[in-house]
Amino acid sequence: MKYDKHAFQDQMPYNHCYGCGPENDLGLQIKSYWSAEDESVCVYTPQAHQCAGPQQYVNGGVIATVIDCHSICTAMAKVYAMAGREIGEGKQIWFATGRLELSYFKPTPIDRELMVIAKITEAKEKKITLECSLSSGGEVCVEANVIAVRVPSDWF
Amino acid sequence: MKYDKHAFQDQMPYNHCYGCGPENDLGLQIKSYWSAEDESVCVYTPQAHQCAGPQQYVNGGVIATVIDCHSICTAMAKVYAMAGREIGEGKQIWFATGRLELSYFKPTPIDRELMVIAKITEAKEKKITLECSLSSGGEVCVEANVIAVRVPSDWF
Repeated sequence: MKYDKHAFQDQMPYNHCYGCGPENDLGLQIKSYWSAEDESVCVYTPQAHQCAGPQQYVNGGVIATVIDCHSICTAMAKVYAMAGREIGEGKQIWFATGRLELSYFKPTPIDRELMVIAKITEAKEKKITLECSLSSGGEVCVEANVIAVRVPSDWF
Repeated sequence: MKYDKHAFQDQMPYNHCYGCGPENDLGLQIKSYWSAEDESVCVYTPQAHQCAGPQQYVNGGVIATVIDCHSICTAMAKVYAMAGREIGEGKQIWFATGRLELSYFKPTPIDRELMVIAKITEAKEKKITLECSLSSGGEVCVEANVIAVRVPSDWF
């Protein structure tokens, strides 16, 4: 899979988000990249303390965090593109989660990297809809639908 | 609101879960209690690093983690009760998340405690369905539907 050179997150200033903010030292600091037209990828290596009850699997909330942040950053990247701008260029564009639906099909092993693919299924300037899959070792463990909604930049 | 004396989590041994495990020093260590018939409550004080992009709000994935773990622990507590046992007594009962649907209505402030109420809407021995609401300062910020499914105790 061919990635763009720069992660979305590294082009978005002032982001302290626990899931995706480069400025949050205690956060996950996920990185997202375009992988195809309207499709993005995030590869994340879980940490041991992010386990579920059984220590060999990833906690469902951590999975939700990775999928959520990857999707929201993808939505923001898309709307910058729709505006004909580089990510982070000009007036800031921010989105938040409106709805997040997750189906957990099988446990996600904690001892290997996981890959989240987000596909944009509908794109409006103030609302982006995405389908996500999270896989581990080539097997899909979780699927998700996400609705990302634009929020005022004065939140920041 | 009148709580039971003991949190569900403090009666469930060997739980390392990032969201609810008393044995996870780096986790959230949420605590859940029965608050009414088939209804449970969890009060959680967010930490500063669990913020969204804007530092005054809680990250959506952290919210998902609290709701998810509170719901799953409620499901397990319910099935112990259905079996006529105290929580943690006898052969262990474990559940995992099958489906988690979250609607985020408004941002959740990070500087005050949040309260999650879970209501059991359907209870079978291997599948528990719940409705949750997360509120802050008396206002509902997030609502969720959760399906918890029983998993083999040899996962643990």
